[in-house]
Amino acid sequence: MDFSTVVRSIPDYPKKGIIFRDITTLLGNPRAFRKAVDELVQPYAGLRIDKVAGIEARGFILGGAVAHQLSIGFVPVRKKGKLPWKVIGEDYALEYGTDRVEIHEDAVQRGENVLLVDDLIATGGTATAAIKLLERAGAKVVGCSFVIDLPDLGGADKLRALGKEVKSLVAFGGH
Amino acid sequence: MDFSTVVRSIPDYPKKGIIFRDITTLLGNPRAFRKAVDELVQPYAGLRIDKVAGIEARGFILGGAVAHQLSIGFVPVRKKGKLPWKVIGEDYALEYGTDRVEIHEDAVQRGENVLLVDDLIATGGTATAAIKLLERAGAKVVGCSFVIDLPDLGGADKLRALGKEVKSLVAFGGH
Repeated sequence: MDFSTVVRSIPDYPKKGIIFRDITTLLGNPRAFRKAVDELVQPYAGLRIDKVAGIEARGFILGGAVAHQLSIGFVPVRKKGKLPWKVIGEDYALEYGTDRVEIHEDAVQRGENVLLVDDLIATGGTATAAIKLLERAGAKVVGCSFVIDLPDLGGADKLRALGKEVKSLVAFGGH
Repeated sequence: MDFSTVVRSIPDYPKKGIIFRDITTLLGNPRAFRKAVDELVQPYAGLRIDKVAGIEARGFILGGAVAHQLSIGFVPVRKKGKLPWKVIGEDYALEYGTDRVEIHEDAVQRGENVLLVDDLIATGGTATAAIKLLERAGAKVVGCSFVIDLPDLGGADKLRALGKEVKSLVAFGGH
C-alpha cells in the first residue's frame, strides 16, 4: 500500500515552511489502519516480542493496535510527570532546552524483547531516549517501527547506528 | 475476569485522600489486555460500528486496540491545540475553570456509528463533551466503553441519562 496517499500533508504547520504530516486520515481509514499495523510488525515476524512500547501520544494509538495484533502487553512511554507510580526517566535535547520521557520501574522485565512504536521518526531524540530507558530497565529493544520517516533529519540512521532494526511505512523529504 | 486484580491502586495520588487507579499493570499483562479489548466491544457485537473514538491520552491505547479488533477506523479526541488541521471543539467544566476537546472536521461522516473508548469514567465531563462533539459532526455515539467506572462520581449515570449504552470492566467505590 502506498501510505503517502492516506497521510495528509499540511503546509506551514506548526510554522511557516514546515509541512506537517497528519496521520489522522490514515487512522480513520479502516483498510489503511489495518494494513499499517500488519506492516509495522512484519519485519519481526520471526522474533519473540514480549511487549510493545508506544510513545505518547500518537504512538499510543498504533502501539495499542500492534500489541493487540501480537497478543502481548503494552508499555506507555510517557512525558514527564504523567505516570502515577515509581518511574525512571531519560532526558533528551530539544532545539531549545531538554525534555524527558518516563516509564514505570516495573514496565518491563529483565530480558524482555520490546518493539518500539511511534507515528514518526524525525531527529530521533525521543526514540533514542525511549530505547535507553527501556534498556536501562533491562529489556532489549529488538525493533523500532514508525509510520513516517523524515530521512533528511537523520533519526532512523541514528537508531541503526545503535544497532537497531528500523521499519517505516512511508518517507517524506524535507522537514 | 476480575479486572480489579490487574489494576494498581495508588493511595494519596495525585493528592492526599485520593486513590489513583493505574491501568498500566493491566496493559502490560497480555491476557488482561486482550480480555479487556474483548469485553469493551462485547455489548455492541450486534451493532454496526463505523469508528472508534478514543480520548487522549490513555483512551488512545485501548481505543487503538479496539479499532484494530473491529477492523475499523480510529478517531483521536484530543486536548485543545493538538490537532494540525481544521477542528471543531467542545468546552467542559473542570473543578476550577474549563477545558476543551477537539476533533478534525472530517473525523466522522454524517450517519456513522461511533464507539467511544476511554480508560476511566469519573464525573463524565470529558466523555459528555466528546459525545456532543462527535454528534455535532453528524455521527451517532452508539456506545461508551471504559475500563474503570467510579460510580460515586456519577459519570456513567450521566451518560445513561443522555440515552447512551455504557460498559465498564470494573467499578471502584470512592473517588
